[in-house]
Amino acid sequence: MKMWDGRFTKASDKIMEAINNSLAVDKRLIEEDITGSIAWAGALLQCGVLTAAEHGAIVDGLKRILDEHFKGLLRFIDFDEDIHMAVERLLIEKIGDAGAKLHTGRSRNDQVVTDVRLYVKKICGHINQLILDFQRVLLNRAQTDITVILPGYTHLQQAQLVLLSHYWLSLLFALEREKQRFIHAAQAADMLPLGSGSLAGAGFLVDRGYLAKELGFALVSPNSIDAVASRDFIIETLSSCASISILLSRYAEDMIIWSSKEFSFIELDDAWSTGSSMMPQKKNPDSLELIRGKAGRCIGNLAGFAATLKGVGLVYYKDLQEDKEPLFDSLDQIELICTVFTQVVATLSVRAESMRRDLDPFMLATDVADYLVTKNMPFRQAHKVVGKIVGYCIEKSCSLQTMSLSQLKEFSELFDNDIAVVLQWDTAILHRDVEGGTGGSSVLHQIALAKTLLNQ
Amino acid sequence: MKMWDGRFTKASDKIMEAINNSLAVDKRLIEEDITGSIAWAGALLQCGVLTAAEHGAIVDGLKRILDEHFKGLLRFIDFDEDIHMAVERLLIEKIGDAGAKLHTGRSRNDQVVTDVRLYVKKICGHINQLILDFQRVLLNRAQTDITVILPGYTHLQQAQLVLLSHYWLSLLFALEREKQRFIHAAQAADMLPLGSGSLAGAGFLVDRGYLAKELGFALVSPNSIDAVASRDFIIETLSSCASISILLSRYAEDMIIWSSKEFSFIELDDAWSTGSSMMPQKKNPDSLELIRGKAGRCIGNLAGFAATLKGVGLVYYKDLQEDKEPLFDSLDQIELICTVFTQVVATLSVRAESMRRDLDPFMLATDVADYLVTKNMPFRQAHKVVGKIVGYCIEKSCSLQTMSLSQLKEFSELFDNDIAVVLQWDTAILHRDVEGGTGGSSVLHQIALAKTLLNQ
Amino acid sequence: MKMWDGRFTKASDKIMEAINNSLAVDKRLIEEDITGSIAWAGALLQCGVLTAAEHGAIVDGLKRILDEHFKGLLRFIDFDEDIHMAVERLLIEKIGDAGAKLHTGRSRNDQVVTDVRLYVKKICGHINQLILDFQRVLLNRAQTDITVILPGYTHLQQAQLVLLSHYWLSLLFALEREKQRFIHAAQAADMLPLGSGSLAGAGFLVDRGYLAKELGFALVSPNSIDAVASRDFIIETLSSCASISILLSRYAEDMIIWSSKEFSFIELDDAWSTGSSMMPQKKNPDSLELIRGKAGRCIGNLAGFAATLKGVGLVYYKDLQEDKEPLFDSLDQIELICTVFTQVVATLSVRAESMRRDLDPFMLATDVADYLVTKNMPFRQAHKVVGKIVGYCIEKSCSLQTMSLSQLKEFSELFDNDIAVVLQWDTAILHRDVEGGTGGSSVLHQIALAKTLLNQ
Amino acid sequence: MKMWDGRFTKASDKIMEAINNSLAVDKRLIEEDITGSIAWAGALLQCGVLTAAEHGAIVDGLKRILDEHFKGLLRFIDFDEDIHMAVERLLIEKIGDAGAKLHTGRSRNDQVVTDVRLYVKKICGHINQLILDFQRVLLNRAQTDITVILPGYTHLQQAQLVLLSHYWLSLLFALEREKQRFIHAAQAADMLPLGSGSLAGAGFLVDRGYLAKELGFALVSPNSIDAVASRDFIIETLSSCASISILLSRYAEDMIIWSSKEFSFIELDDAWSTGSSMMPQKKNPDSLELIRGKAGRCIGNLAGFAATLKGVGLVYYKDLQEDKEPLFDSLDQIELICTVFTQVVATLSVRAESMRRDLDPFMLATDVADYLVTKNMPFRQAHKVVGKIVGYCIEKSCSLQTMSLSQLKEFSELFDNDIAVVLQWDTAILHRDVEGGTGGSSVLHQIALAKTLLNQ
Repeated sequence: MKMWDGRFTKASDKIMEAINNSLAVDKRLIEEDITGSIAWAGALLQCGVLTAAEHGAIVDGLKRILDEHFKGLLRFIDFDEDIHMAVERLLIEKIGDAGAKLHTGRSRNDQVVTDVRLYVKKICGHINQLILDFQRVLLNRAQTDITVILPGYTHLQQAQLVLLSHYWLSLLFALEREKQRFIHAAQAADMLPLGSGSLAGAGFLVDRGYLAKELGFALVSPNSIDAVASRDFIIETLSSCASISILLSRYAEDMIIWSSKEFSFIELDDAWSTGSSMMPQKKNPDSLELIRGKAGRCIGNLAGFAATLKGVGLVYYKDLQEDKEPLFDSLDQIELICTVFTQVVATLSVRAESMRRDLDPFMLATDVADYLVTKNMPFRQAHKVVGKIVGYCIEKSCSLQTMSLSQLKEFSELFDNDIAVVLQWDTAILHRDVEGGTGGSSVLHQIALAKTLLNQ
Repeated sequence: MKMWDGRFTKASDKIMEAINNSLAVDKRLIEEDITGSIAWAGALLQCGVLTAAEHGAIVDGLKRILDEHFKGLLRFIDFDEDIHMAVERLLIEKIGDAGAKLHTGRSRNDQVVTDVRLYVKKICGHINQLILDFQRVLLNRAQTDITVILPGYTHLQQAQLVLLSHYWLSLLFALEREKQRFIHAAQAADMLPLGSGSLAGAGFLVDRGYLAKELGFALVSPNSIDAVASRDFIIETLSSCASISILLSRYAEDMIIWSSKEFSFIELDDAWSTGSSMMPQKKNPDSLELIRGKAGRCIGNLAGFAATLKGVGLVYYKDLQEDKEPLFDSLDQIELICTVFTQVVATLSVRAESMRRDLDPFMLATDVADYLVTKNMPFRQAHKVVGKIVGYCIEKSCSLQTMSLSQLKEFSELFDNDIAVVLQWDTAILHRDVEGGTGGSSVLHQIALAKTLLNQ
Repeated sequence: MKMWDGRFTKASDKIMEAINNSLAVDKRLIEEDITGSIAWAGALLQCGVLTAAEHGAIVDGLKRILDEHFKGLLRFIDFDEDIHMAVERLLIEKIGDAGAKLHTGRSRNDQVVTDVRLYVKKICGHINQLILDFQRVLLNRAQTDITVILPGYTHLQQAQLVLLSHYWLSLLFALEREKQRFIHAAQAADMLPLGSGSLAGAGFLVDRGYLAKELGFALVSPNSIDAVASRDFIIETLSSCASISILLSRYAEDMIIWSSKEFSFIELDDAWSTGSSMMPQKKNPDSLELIRGKAGRCIGNLAGFAATLKGVGLVYYKDLQEDKEPLFDSLDQIELICTVFTQVVATLSVRAESMRRDLDPFMLATDVADYLVTKNMPFRQAHKVVGKIVGYCIEKSCSLQTMSLSQLKEFSELFDNDIAVVLQWDTAILHRDVEGGTGGSSVLHQIALAKTLLNQ
Repeated sequence: MKMWDGRFTKASDKIMEAINNSLAVDKRLIEEDITGSIAWAGALLQCGVLTAAEHGAIVDGLKRILDEHFKGLLRFIDFDEDIHMAVERLLIEKIGDAGAKLHTGRSRNDQVVTDVRLYVKKICGHINQLILDFQRVLLNRAQTDITVILPGYTHLQQAQLVLLSHYWLSLLFALEREKQRFIHAAQAADMLPLGSGSLAGAGFLVDRGYLAKELGFALVSPNSIDAVASRDFIIETLSSCASISILLSRYAEDMIIWSSKEFSFIELDDAWSTGSSMMPQKKNPDSLELIRGKAGRCIGNLAGFAATLKGVGLVYYKDLQEDKEPLFDSLDQIELICTVFTQVVATLSVRAESMRRDLDPFMLATDVADYLVTKNMPFRQAHKVVGKIVGYCIEKSCSLQTMSLSQLKEFSELFDNDIAVVLQWDTAILHRDVEGGTGGSSVLHQIALAKTLLNQ
């Protein structure tokens, strides 16, 4: 027996119930479901469907259910096909007929999407708090590691010197944009569907402005069909999750490489590493590898639900029930990897000497070209001249830094004594004080900007 | 010979050039590239790298190139690996040495992403104009079709009556959110990378605030590593494209079904239909099917570039070159399907009589249950009672609308003469004047709201 | 304390354990893990690492663990990071030191992928049995529904008549190809990795041919790096799952449309339908909608793990641990939807009269064109002539079937009395006895072919 | 005017033609289209639709069109919506009325999928030839590099020694499975749809066995609905492309890391590297990065077309037209990256001394544990003992290889003089002569096996 089977002459098949039942997934919405029902009871009271006594009984009953939930006392039964029906059953068991009035004017169509919207708003807020924690760790590292020089890579070839702080700040600023995405996703979710009924609007003149206020929604959905059918806020949330997961996968990749013996730029804390069941010496950056790998999962959740939603007509089809598992999974993963990455960065050891050990003098090549430019050689020509010098150094196995002035002059008469300064490591950093560059004052400026962003 | 091969002793393989060459794809960025270069020349003038004469020659040369482009006179050569190198070559050919100074302090790393950001901003704006056009057509239809009653469906089963206007408005409001996404995507793109060099910042103190102002960017990127490495704005743009494509696929699905002989709710204009090479009678809603199918493509572009970007370390790897084809393709597709769908809706014929012909009286079942609720029967019980009545009607092949009062009373004593009004079609519509509902005054309210949104 | 932490000075963080722990997911591999360990113990006995007594104790201990598992008596503890470590712990608890010898020469790297390969082989076989059951139901329906005429659709426009049997058979034959894919996926999985150690091969000369034979693998992996690193068999399995899920989504789409009141071609059994929490009259084909929706999930699992695997270097990174959740989920979903769809088709009612009720005479248009071709009019011209006749019928609201000969002759002199036969419904079916066509004898031929395929 | 517009009263809109037109994409099928048409003409001759003269004219006309195509003389016009209509138009222009008879009994529905199946078979064969070329290069390298010792990595931590040959062979054997997938994809494509008409079968008794033989198809499609509707062979082909692209992305990742200064294990040939527009010293492994990045694209093509196909009902909708762009693009990319990777591997320089330079003595830890096992210590305990030794070495900054016997004995009394042999690099390799292991004789066995596979 189901709550909706008045017209049916035959019970559902057991396997049908298995595929149809969503309780295992949607039970995590219980708080939102009960909050929504309390607000709904208030609206029914206002429009005369419930008496004050019935309303009181319903609100009390719902609060008791929530209380039992928090205490771990709640028991679901096979009969419960989803969290909505389970709560309604529990309520009727507790308070009788008044409970049977709660679903008046409401459909699971508007109810479930109300619950999910409340949930998305909550978790997006939580994630942004975690991102903020991460940014604070990055800011801290940027301040601590301000003297550490890192070879900056393009194509994993040493390209130009940067400050390690500059690297940490790059992630801090990138995360600021990811926060913005979760704010937008929460805004997209911030519209009340309740009162839309199954598709045409509730049959009672409930005050939806009141419902929105009670539940903390910024907007009342303007159209009941759209309210029940739309899942674009879920796509946007899944996309936000995918976006940050990809960002973190990229920094994880760098730091996995930095953890190799060959680079030895950083060492992860034991607490964030694991060993091997076979090889006793192994200390592996599994935490970073899992962060990298989880990005695929978030991409899959997005691509999968997008495919599910594609071509599903209006107003509601059961296909939409497939929205919750990818959504919950992606949100869970983001909470997990933000937390883990924050701790990994907070606890890792920087090997400044390793970073400095193997600096490739060729990283100064652009600076040498820029030097020639200041002597009025066109850049494209300067690039070629320095290319030739680089080729010469490779052939002769000599260092760009130890080329004599006379050697350099064979490539261009424009070289002069002042080239010596250009060929010092620190000059290359100082040279980059353009806004956003890796020069010391630029980095200090970035730190100040970051403090403002993080309200510190 | 390449512009960067000073250190190379051997030319690229022809196949290497084929896989590496991006000109066929990125040549559409020529306007942005030249605009960016003109601004860059201004910045180089300011910091003394260029003389006024050199600057003048460069600006003049770039404008001539653009002019030749508009006139279709531009010729690329095999040597050109991308639009940036092509423009630089053309410039040097035109103005000589001064042209060879343009690339001073700049890298293709910051240059290309500047171009792409400019392009994304432009096209997102264009798409939003197309969406606005579509919304205007929908508003027009909502006003025209205000008296047409449509069976509303859930699970493709007739569920409750709605006004056809209510349906059109549901898409109008949904599109408003999609516009918001393109605004967000354009904002995400609205940050100047130029001046970041290859990763560490330009080696000259260019005024990046000036560059941002010249190029219309709201922000200067705060960190050169992030500026060169980040492609999250592309993920966001691809996600916005996927989101609207999914939305349109869902309405296209409905309207394909509505175009069937069995539904006959609408008929597409000949101009937006096609025939069959074999079956002379066929008139097919291909336009809608293509719209539906294109959603898969937009999902694929998103999932594909997300996979490409996943795990790509900092600061720049050539993997990132794969960003442009999915980006351009998704933006192209959205422009196309917005335009087509607008015209399809604008020109289709509504078959109001077909919509009304086959209305299922059971669509009034919720209203009957609501009626019992007003007689103080708990909704859950009322739902069961009406379920029984429905079962009876099916068994006896009779219509819910023609049930006599005495027949109804066998199911509940609460039925009275006033049930007759409930069983009329129009009552069901009138009954839904809750905010966002399909009732006439609610729909008029929505139309007023829509006019405000669209500034009409 | 972990089994691998000899070199560690500090315990893992709790959150690290949470992200790293895979027991919740991989515990379903317990049978495969124990089977694999029993075979491994045999190999260690052969090469002298184990004594006969130790071997006996290990095999006995492992069997007792499996037995407890079947009896539901097994308890895992927080310390267990995965099923392999859990089984090893349980074994050591049961039999002491001999248990501590089991992992000799083996790594979790080769162990886990051995387990997963065994599992994939098993479930692919199971799925193919379910597909066979489905095909048998389809064959049965094809035989039962042999006289039912169905309008065949392209673009959801009535196109040409087909037999309903022909439709059922189309799915039967398509499923045959999906079975082939699971056979291929199982073959791809059918290679023994055990003995590859963590990457370089076991340090003991275990007889891998013996292991393969014991575990039922067709092949021994030829290279230990490849054995440990490769997950292409998982991509292939996920792709096979996605492929069949897409196929079923397409037939589900048709049958959802057929279940609408407007089509009324079929009615689902109550056992495979559900009702509405709000609308008492509703009977919804949720089973079909869920089948359709699950395809998105299978696509997501494929796209997601593909993205995870992309760019993960050799030989093993923890990213690979993300293989099991999508794999298990897709296999579970396919088992579920195959079972459900089989039952839906087996129990649905066909409404032959509805299919015949609304046949569009224009479906005979191609036959009329073919008629003109037999009178020696070129087809392209015949297509145009019949196009004109169709246009005329639409304009005059008359039926193609009731056009008089004289009316037809106004479009072409080639029409003669024998056109009357062409304009009868049954002729159109009879006309399609080409191999694979919908003509009666062709369909009987298909049924015979299907019986052979299904060994019936 | 279109070839199908007999019933239309109004021309298509220009934008409708733009979205509907597929010529730009499908014109690459011209050879297959003409081959198919020649076979079709033969079938029409056999069943009396064409006279011998008409048949001769058609075949001759088609051959002339193909000839003009090869000579680059073919001109398409706006009127041509796809390659099928274009060829028919050209034929009619060339030979008049007989050409207008060619489309008798055929639909573009069965025609296009015939063309695509022929194309897939051809290109899969071509790709497998390219894979074979790659395998030959790998075999060659395996033979050349037989003495080179490579640190083998898990988690990018040095794990155990392997022979570089062993690494090359791992890719060779993995590619063998990818070839198998293209064979399966070609088999899935190897079924003749022609003769299925638009969905119900051709209206003439064409001999489909003859058609299959002429066109080289192994099977005749058993059911016309399935023949026209099914695109599973495209999903399988796209999946095969994604699979190999992922494989290559993983080896590309390794080799990008190996190309870094810090590893310096290999150096790419200049012909397969590129430089920087800004930094004169740069030599970047762009070829490998593009190979890695292309995997995302292949994943996207698969996910995208899977989403397009999901939920598209039978028998044919225009959504299916979206199959060709992802298909062609993935096949093109695979041809390109196979070719490039083959050349990259063939021409790269191995830096054996760099590989050997930095070998981590801890890579012998498993061998030491195995040593203790041979002294009858249980492996799990041996693992712990060696873990302690490793911890000691780290703390004392000493090498495992230089630990004295007395030092070792402090960790276990089982150590004896014979441990010295274990601590030599070459022993570790020799130790792995298990089947599939990296031991020298195992690798020679693999080379012999590879020769057999490649018929060398």
